[in-house]
Amino acid sequence: MNYQIIPLNELVEQFAKLPGIGRKTAQRLALYLLEQPPESAKRFADALLNAREKIHFCKVCQALTDQDICRICEDATRDRSVICVVEEPRDVLAIERTHEFHGLYHVLHGVISPLDGVGPDQLHVKELMERLSSGEVQELIMAMNPTVEGEATASYLSRLTKPMGIKVTRLAYGIPVGGELEYADDHTLVRALSGRNEI
Amino acid sequence: MNYQIIPLNELVEQFAKLPGIGRKTAQRLALYLLEQPPESAKRFADALLNAREKIHFCKVCQALTDQDICRICEDATRDRSVICVVEEPRDVLAIERTHEFHGLYHVLHGVISPLDGVGPDQLHVKELMERLSSGEVQELIMAMNPTVEGEATASYLSRLTKPMGIKVTRLAYGIPVGGELEYADDHTLVRALSGRNEI
Repeated sequence: MNYQIIPLNELVEQFAKLPGIGRKTAQRLALYLLEQPPESAKRFADALLNAREKIHFCKVCQALTDQDICRICEDATRDRSVICVVEEPRDVLAIERTHEFHGLYHVLHGVISPLDGVGPDQLHVKELMERLSSGEVQELIMAMNPTVEGEATASYLSRLTKPMGIKVTRLAYGIPVGGELEYADDHTLVRALSGRNEI
Repeated sequence: MNYQIIPLNELVEQFAKLPGIGRKTAQRLALYLLEQPPESAKRFADALLNAREKIHFCKVCQALTDQDICRICEDATRDRSVICVVEEPRDVLAIERTHEFHGLYHVLHGVISPLDGVGPDQLHVKELMERLSSGEVQELIMAMNPTVEGEATASYLSRLTKPMGIKVTRLAYGIPVGGELEYADDHTLVRALSGRNEI
């Protein structure tokens, strides 16, 4: 009685698993691909398999790479005395897009979150400590997200690394550029005030 | 100098080609898939290739199917005296979802649009006329979108089929259920007024 097209349903199912994609959007995307020439679906499938197979974590900084050691870590022109510590690989992409940071990265792959059973051992903290042992690193920039867990992780790492004589800094809090004071939340406003600069 | 992960860029590229998916969303979806176990990407790719390979147009009604003739056309319990004419395969899915229509469908795969060089010959009009020649069909429901092109296509088909003694109807226009009068556009309000029913 029902008009079911199993292979279509299966494709819709896959799209609907993606974050932020509801059933209606999933169906629209699946139908769109069916309307395209067969090569399109083939190219999409190839890109998917290829990315999943070739991309893994950099041995050194744990960012995404299709090499043994990522292009940032192997780049001789980058400043090896500064490491920017981030939560996820996507954060590296975001900071790289600014073209303003020339040091190295370290991706923790999460934050300390006792409620979720994530402690330092579940993160790539050990790998960070190994990198610091060479004595080359002079500054660690904590670039975790401004959440309770992000803060906790930053202060944990700070306590761990300051005794080694390493300068630990944190990204500045404040009003987002282009944002409006009226819409900033209280915490952000308080931080923006306390972190004010002379002009 | 740039931090490029070619296989990731290629996957983002593919996602960004989908309708309504911008670059930022494309990157989020690609990264999400890279974080999943490898089987997820494999299943996604398989679903894509399988759907594209198995799904084509029903020989009779031109809707999507993975059979020679779709489940609706081959369903002996459906009313063969009524054909609902729609623009795209997705419209069949939308009407089937209501479980209220028990006739057959015919998918034109577009609408007459002289500006885009689409005339009746570029649509599946010939196939519709063939179906009507059996004399079994007594009513054609025009379910094109309420656009200028949809209207033009409906009146073209109506002129073509009325002389054959076939009743031609059109979906009702009016205020969407749950919509508010205040936000209805003038055209819709005019149609809702002129199509008013006694209660």
